[in-house]
Amino acid sequence: MDAIRKGWFSEISDLWPGQCFSLKVKEVLFQGKSKYQDVLIVQTTNHGKALILDGIIQCTEFDEFSYQEMISFLPLCVHKNPEKVLIVGGGDGGVAREVQKHPLVKEFVQVEIDEMVIEQSKIHLPFMAKGFDSAKLTLEVCDGFEYMKNHQNEFDVIITDSSDPVGPAVNLFTESYFKLLKTALKPHGIICSQAGTVWSDLEQVRETIKNCKKHFPTVSYAVSSVPTYPNGQIGYLVASLDKEVDLTKPTTKFLDKEVDEYQLRYYNAQIHEASFVLPNSFKKSLWN
Amino acid sequence: MDAIRKGWFSEISDLWPGQCFSLKVKEVLFQGKSKYQDVLIVQTTNHGKALILDGIIQCTEFDEFSYQEMISFLPLCVHKNPEKVLIVGGGDGGVAREVQKHPLVKEFVQVEIDEMVIEQSKIHLPFMAKGFDSAKLTLEVCDGFEYMKNHQNEFDVIITDSSDPVGPAVNLFTESYFKLLKTALKPHGIICSQAGTVWSDLEQVRETIKNCKKHFPTVSYAVSSVPTYPNGQIGYLVASLDKEVDLTKPTTKFLDKEVDEYQLRYYNAQIHEASFVLPNSFKKSLWN
Repeated sequence: MDAIRKGWFSEISDLWPGQCFSLKVKEVLFQGKSKYQDVLIVQTTNHGKALILDGIIQCTEFDEFSYQEMISFLPLCVHKNPEKVLIVGGGDGGVAREVQKHPLVKEFVQVEIDEMVIEQSKIHLPFMAKGFDSAKLTLEVCDGFEYMKNHQNEFDVIITDSSDPVGPAVNLFTESYFKLLKTALKPHGIICSQAGTVWSDLEQVRETIKNCKKHFPTVSYAVSSVPTYPNGQIGYLVASLDKEVDLTKPTTKFLDKEVDEYQLRYYNAQIHEASFVLPNSFKKSLWN
Repeated sequence: MDAIRKGWFSEISDLWPGQCFSLKVKEVLFQGKSKYQDVLIVQTTNHGKALILDGIIQCTEFDEFSYQEMISFLPLCVHKNPEKVLIVGGGDGGVAREVQKHPLVKEFVQVEIDEMVIEQSKIHLPFMAKGFDSAKLTLEVCDGFEYMKNHQNEFDVIITDSSDPVGPAVNLFTESYFKLLKTALKPHGIICSQAGTVWSDLEQVRETIKNCKKHFPTVSYAVSSVPTYPNGQIGYLVASLDKEVDLTKPTTKFLDKEVDEYQLRYYNAQIHEASFVLPNSFKKSLWN
């Protein structure tokens, strides 16, 4: 747990060899080991508070809105009636904070495996954990796989807010996970999963898309800018049970006054469409 | 010049306080001090060769195509007839490499102040410096300001490929620079300048846009993903001498076969449009 050296936290991982992003740390707010992973929460000097799991930055106060808004509204705004939603993971509460804003969402369930992440986020990261206060939410501390096995044909949208494919999240990128997602969805269901970045995980993204395509006829991939993630970017796999649906065109388009009312700092209908446009080299590698 | 510690180059700057990006270095290929700046060229372990000026990463073999293609084709593809082009800066040759590809460009001039950057790029960074081989190019080693004072009403497009607003590039973000650009342009002229990122330089970007607006009636701002730049992103200021022109819509749209022929790894017509779409919070801050 010697994560901070000379006042800096450095994120070194075999997932992105030869590069390292560091944040200057003012104070360690929590450091512990849960049943599943190392949990570290720090106050940085310039990026607000940060949650770090197994040595990998999950979110900082500086830029978390990009990820939380995009992973929530990309699927919610292409589903015609996302009344019931499931969030798998997302123990900091940030995705719950966004999901509860959508006017068509009547109720949502969140299943997070690691209670320590929830509890410590409530204490140290209230700007995200306020999502847990939603009256629309049922929060379950359990394994997402197990939960879905017992809840079939139940959800309109399922959002998988996982960490990277190492440690507790490794199963959330496999074919069997996408099979399970399919059974938990109602007809016309839509999923959205954190899916890594094409800059350093191209093969992983290709593999995840391939796994998803075995069970979903329509699959697409979007990105958003998140400076404190490796390569400054994160990807989203969005998929539908329906054929021939265009996931890049939102069916719910928030008006400017709704963007203000919901305090959306990143997501809007134009960003939705633009996020699916990929550079030539990645477009070819992913879809050919 | 103690830039490499324990095999890593770390980019620490007051321009982006509290964060630091590091690259693992296999070998230092060149280290020198020119009249203008510290010049460092390294072979990294995973990101190819990298050019570093005054301790700031200018480009790596891994991701330079994003920047070089975008800063070149954003302006070239919205000008109806970009016959004569000026590049200010760009001593590594990467922008020249892209500009010479555009079928409507008949000739272009490049003015770079630092001969050491040109010479060392030719030796160590041929994948970019091959741009200097273009028969369309006249290369001048001199100050961009001075050059433009003596070349008025001459260019259709001017691209400013500068480093960040510290050191030799500081003047390239001022009002007097935009005034000079205007005089060097022919009617209907278009400019594109490196303009920093909204994530950590929001005030600088606002200021640069403000300076530009004093001389150009149409000003816009785009971004592209460049993992080894601070925040994983870089911005481009695109401006036109004409009123009511939509800089987000390319007039030259490359066909798929042209994208292949020109070996474009990032830029295409869809990316062009998408690159101008900003998250809500930045859109408001920049344009209100």
